[in-house]
Amino acid sequence: MSKSRNPLVGELCAEFAGTLILILFGTAVVAQVVTSTDGSLGDHDSIAWAWGIGVTLGVYVSARLSGGHLNPAVTIALAAFKGFSWAKVGPYVVAQTLGAFVAALIVRISYAELIGTVDPGHTIKTQGIFSTLPGNGIDGFSMTTAFVDQVVGTAILVFVVFALTTVWNNPPMANLGPVVVGLLVVGLGMAWGANAGYAINPARDLGPRLASLMTGYGDALSDQNGDLYFWLPIVAPIIGGLIGGALFKVLIEMHLTAGIAEDEAVSEPANAHR
Amino acid sequence: MSKSRNPLVGELCAEFAGTLILILFGTAVVAQVVTSTDGSLGDHDSIAWAWGIGVTLGVYVSARLSGGHLNPAVTIALAAFKGFSWAKVGPYVVAQTLGAFVAALIVRISYAELIGTVDPGHTIKTQGIFSTLPGNGIDGFSMTTAFVDQVVGTAILVFVVFALTTVWNNPPMANLGPVVVGLLVVGLGMAWGANAGYAINPARDLGPRLASLMTGYGDALSDQNGDLYFWLPIVAPIIGGLIGGALFKVLIEMHLTAGIAEDEAVSEPANAHR
Amino acid sequence: MSKSRNPLVGELCAEFAGTLILILFGTAVVAQVVTSTDGSLGDHDSIAWAWGIGVTLGVYVSARLSGGHLNPAVTIALAAFKGFSWAKVGPYVVAQTLGAFVAALIVRISYAELIGTVDPGHTIKTQGIFSTLPGNGIDGFSMTTAFVDQVVGTAILVFVVFALTTVWNNPPMANLGPVVVGLLVVGLGMAWGANAGYAINPARDLGPRLASLMTGYGDALSDQNGDLYFWLPIVAPIIGGLIGGALFKVLIEMHLTAGIAEDEAVSEPANAHR
Amino acid sequence: MSKSRNPLVGELCAEFAGTLILILFGTAVVAQVVTSTDGSLGDHDSIAWAWGIGVTLGVYVSARLSGGHLNPAVTIALAAFKGFSWAKVGPYVVAQTLGAFVAALIVRISYAELIGTVDPGHTIKTQGIFSTLPGNGIDGFSMTTAFVDQVVGTAILVFVVFALTTVWNNPPMANLGPVVVGLLVVGLGMAWGANAGYAINPARDLGPRLASLMTGYGDALSDQNGDLYFWLPIVAPIIGGLIGGALFKVLIEMHLTAGIAEDEAVSEPANAHR
Repeated sequence: MSKSRNPLVGELCAEFAGTLILILFGTAVVAQVVTSTDGSLGDHDSIAWAWGIGVTLGVYVSARLSGGHLNPAVTIALAAFKGFSWAKVGPYVVAQTLGAFVAALIVRISYAELIGTVDPGHTIKTQGIFSTLPGNGIDGFSMTTAFVDQVVGTAILVFVVFALTTVWNNPPMANLGPVVVGLLVVGLGMAWGANAGYAINPARDLGPRLASLMTGYGDALSDQNGDLYFWLPIVAPIIGGLIGGALFKVLIEMHLTAGIAEDEAVSEPANAHR
Repeated sequence: MSKSRNPLVGELCAEFAGTLILILFGTAVVAQVVTSTDGSLGDHDSIAWAWGIGVTLGVYVSARLSGGHLNPAVTIALAAFKGFSWAKVGPYVVAQTLGAFVAALIVRISYAELIGTVDPGHTIKTQGIFSTLPGNGIDGFSMTTAFVDQVVGTAILVFVVFALTTVWNNPPMANLGPVVVGLLVVGLGMAWGANAGYAINPARDLGPRLASLMTGYGDALSDQNGDLYFWLPIVAPIIGGLIGGALFKVLIEMHLTAGIAEDEAVSEPANAHR
Repeated sequence: MSKSRNPLVGELCAEFAGTLILILFGTAVVAQVVTSTDGSLGDHDSIAWAWGIGVTLGVYVSARLSGGHLNPAVTIALAAFKGFSWAKVGPYVVAQTLGAFVAALIVRISYAELIGTVDPGHTIKTQGIFSTLPGNGIDGFSMTTAFVDQVVGTAILVFVVFALTTVWNNPPMANLGPVVVGLLVVGLGMAWGANAGYAINPARDLGPRLASLMTGYGDALSDQNGDLYFWLPIVAPIIGGLIGGALFKVLIEMHLTAGIAEDEAVSEPANAHR
Repeated sequence: MSKSRNPLVGELCAEFAGTLILILFGTAVVAQVVTSTDGSLGDHDSIAWAWGIGVTLGVYVSARLSGGHLNPAVTIALAAFKGFSWAKVGPYVVAQTLGAFVAALIVRISYAELIGTVDPGHTIKTQGIFSTLPGNGIDGFSMTTAFVDQVVGTAILVFVVFALTTVWNNPPMANLGPVVVGLLVVGLGMAWGANAGYAINPARDLGPRLASLMTGYGDALSDQNGDLYFWLPIVAPIIGGLIGGALFKVLIEMHLTAGIAEDEAVSEPANAHR
């Protein structure tokens, strides 16, 4: 089998495939729970677990080739603080968003019959399968709270991902970092899912939002209050990721023993070997 | 203790035993939940977890001897893409189906009293303990959706199993791959269980279906709409597994660095050492 | 710090302490769920998880010194099939039962106020906190089903424990076997908990049963039908453990490659180093 | 990047950051569940899991620099039994409490809108988000039971943490100890959460209690019966931790084989490398 000439092709395929796997679990579990009107096929716990498992598996799929970012907020924070190439940020973000978009289309098609039964008009009732809403759709919930929440949630994500992948901070070994990163996302879903549905990932939110917009959800760019919302789970996570990365530098990384460590610790999310 | 002369005997014993363990957990957890009419002995979350744990343990039981396939769709995909011997596919599939059949009989007997109490006629109400139904028994649910679902679900399964077992893609180490494969099946149950009960494994479905057919479930070959259904969770997973394997080749494997890796990466599901 | 002269003292302390930890989680989680009358402090899922976590932690506490059996059915199966000294079986069983007894007393005292509120007469309503009942207390549930269930459940337990601890069958590494053994018990609680409350361990059942008998539960030796029951979760698990061990020999161990392995694989439950 | 001159600064930053992460998960998950009045955003299971995940992640954040205590009861027990410097106990406890305090403020602000909706008066109804109550707020629940519970729960915590971190007792390897410590806390929440809300950590309770006191919860120092309560989850865990540490010495450590081990086993919670 021939190798790709350009390694970036492999990296982008991996980011595409890893985010695809992530969203194939993430949006489908919400579809399963939301369309199971008697609650017999899952609950919020299964949503939190399946998102986390999706992250773990998506990282295993992609980490060898691309580092397994799967999230523009992570990619940008790696570029800002860990020496990841700024030139690759754009292509990575496109591949991530495309993977999320394709996955959401597959879920949209696979769950079309069940969605059509419980929400034939494709309203806000099932829009949350694909993209997030302030307060998960509570009437009148404030966009300010959602913004703060997304900044805080993504700061936690990036802070802990850096802690789990900076070699000199003693991350998990035996290539089991992706399992712990999955637990991190399980915890975020359980503890930081109430104010804005824990997008904490611009690709995770925008890709499926566009997929739903193109397949019957005409109001997918707005929230339950009719305000344009799609930009919030893009902007706030990027800001939060940068804050989390900066705090990791200040609170942990600058106190680690070895100056010699810094080159090797650069851009190694989830034990990548690029 | 004397060794088997023919190593295939050990491999088939392992596939039998591993699938037996898988189905001893898988069908029994559904029996426990379905016969607990007040819901006090579990829910969909416990079903998803116990199936995943069954996979993890079944793979640990068998991986050393047989590679721990436990699933004809996996065996066929390994033959198509990873050099597993086509001559062994038939015997493996028989051993897997037999293991699932015997396990279902043990569950049928052990849970006979509780099943007899909640469903004395052995109707479709408890048939789902043993085999899957389109839409988990929703009246009029379409077989097309179930077919698409089983193709997609098994494609995800095989794609990720290949990612987790291809040595040059950096799988989990310390022989913990089977735990992550279990998490994969937990996630599939939570996210891809609504349209067709996530058979994603012909042996898992056919073996218990025959066991129930022979022990009082006269309609076990059909679905809730009276249509012949048993073939679907056989055919669709095989197709899905081949699609998942092919996508893994295209999106990940052909971009991996070392051409030298390919021989060693052949047919190593869940860190087998055959 | 001086070492014990006789290493058996350390082994028995470890079995005592490990079973103590196991039962401190196992009976307390049932107490928490049963006394939380509005269901707000847990459910069957938390019962299954906490028992499994108790096993994992009890094994970590004790495995270095004693091998972490924590269960007479396991100890006897190890003596029958893995060369564990028959002379130590008696002392181990006493230490295990004593550890379970003391743990149950601690839970009995700690939860006395809550138990007194929901069941001031200390009846069969809360007896299940400490010891098991056929069909978890369903009126008229048959002892035969409970017996079959305990044989099957313990056979699964010992079969898989042997698979996870026989060095030549490739068990989990990095000393993470106890985590997988815990998952095994989680799965057993979810799938094999309906017919007899998954005692699968004579010490786990008898120790707490005696503790409850001595602290207000006058009928603790009988089941809900008034029949003497305490003997069943002792006898059936021992039989089941022997069956499980024998099946492991026939289906897996005799097919493993190396004759040289057999000495080293002897009595190594959960990565013991004795 | 320049190193801190004084390594204690790094240690205190790590204890601050690790406890911050712990409490960012711990108090937020309770906020999410308590403010989700229809129960659709979690339950007691998610509370137990998110606290455990918070511990796992907090330890990974901090263990390299500080050992990852995150709990004054652990720090004091390490000083009493494992040679941790008594001179550092004070600074560690302050850093831990400060981290918990700041985290609780962040949760207080992020969840202000939801808390304001379900409990505009900031009463005891939502005080449990931040600090614990005897019997989780049951009217008239006795402080004696809560005290016993906190002693027992923290004794279990420290006993098992010592078992999981004493090198010669064979702890988990591959730097996965923090995952098992997280499971320990999950189990404590499921089994020892009924009598006093499993504070088992003075910093975890006092820090958020002060944060809530300063932001509208005027009665945060008292329990539902109007009695001063804040001292109990400080005093009882410290006593319990000392008992747990002493029992570990007697039941396990003094029986371990090698006298040579003792120096190296000193103060190594969660595989620290200090």
